[in-house]
Amino acid sequence: MSTASGAATAGRGRGRRPGGPDTRGQILAAARASFAEKGFAGTTIRAVAAEASVDPALVHHYFGSKDDLFLAALEIPFDPRSVVPTVFADGVPGAGERLTRLFLSVWDDPRSRLPLIALVRTSLVSEAPETLLQQGLLRLLLEPLRAALPAAEAGRRVQLVISQMAGLVVTRYLLALEPLASMPPEDVVAWVAPTVQRYLDGPLPDRLR
Amino acid sequence: MSTASGAATAGRGRGRRPGGPDTRGQILAAARASFAEKGFAGTTIRAVAAEASVDPALVHHYFGSKDDLFLAALEIPFDPRSVVPTVFADGVPGAGERLTRLFLSVWDDPRSRLPLIALVRTSLVSEAPETLLQQGLLRLLLEPLRAALPAAEAGRRVQLVISQMAGLVVTRYLLALEPLASMPPEDVVAWVAPTVQRYLDGPLPDRLR
Repeated sequence: MSTASGAATAGRGRGRRPGGPDTRGQILAAARASFAEKGFAGTTIRAVAAEASVDPALVHHYFGSKDDLFLAALEIPFDPRSVVPTVFADGVPGAGERLTRLFLSVWDDPRSRLPLIALVRTSLVSEAPETLLQQGLLRLLLEPLRAALPAAEAGRRVQLVISQMAGLVVTRYLLALEPLASMPPEDVVAWVAPTVQRYLDGPLPDRLR
Repeated sequence: MSTASGAATAGRGRGRRPGGPDTRGQILAAARASFAEKGFAGTTIRAVAAEASVDPALVHHYFGSKDDLFLAALEIPFDPRSVVPTVFADGVPGAGERLTRLFLSVWDDPRSRLPLIALVRTSLVSEAPETLLQQGLLRLLLEPLRAALPAAEAGRRVQLVISQMAGLVVTRYLLALEPLASMPPEDVVAWVAPTVQRYLDGPLPDRLR
């Protein structure tokens, strides 16, 4: 440990450095700054590497793809690309309840709630049509959600699910409206899961048939 | 018109002025500045009157109560205190559809959407627990909603309705996520009204009985 750390420290300020525990943090700091300032589309692995004075290959080595780097920079302890498919592993029936419970477990946990609230706040204030929330997190959530549903109306159904979830984000977590903010998670699941389930696989409304 | 306008102009800068077309606008400007800077609780009719250099009685004369002044300052072309009760005039059955349609008509109209978006954006960024959105608009919406429902669980039911509406605000109007942002209003009503109706008067979930 001390050797790797020493190497990273010794290399500081002399251009591209070898990897070390400190290097990883510097890449993350550079990534966070870039995502915040330049948005998702404006951030490249190459520019993050240059900012952290490391080789781009080292960024790939530590973090993988740009999506992986984004999730690491966001510091949320779950990956929607792997977690959402587990919700649908047993099929769409019951997925409304599993998805609502997953959503609440993520947002009720301060470790994930705090970075998510910061991301949502920033994005809701932005006048830019494509925000970090949309190009980063929502895209990573929507793709596996859409893939889990039959094609017909999947786009609209997924958006309706997101609309109910986003409403909980605003009322329960951002504004902390009572009595919703203090409602036990299992009560929220009992009320909201049927909504999510109907959006996922309920019959099409009459006028849309 | 020219006489009243002249009188208001002549009085400018000489302390309390008589009413005139211009005075009304100055009171509104002072009210908007106060609500934005000091919040709802921190705004008083007296301070707004002083800022506009008029007698507090004139503010009451033009605008009525502080709630009325707030709604006028917000410039939305409807009053939730009178509109929400009409939704429930024919009872709770069907109110989910009427409320969803009313909500969409307000938000799809740029005259009300633009000031509302500004209010929501400001409030969602605020770290303050009690925002202008909560103490001002949401309170004026929640009170008649709660009054329209039977007492048991009314508080939670109303919050759940607000959660779905808030989610549409974020996804359809603030983030303008597609395909939801372009969905015809009647399609949104067809999908969302059953959710609102269930929150209003659907059976209690099993675990809450």
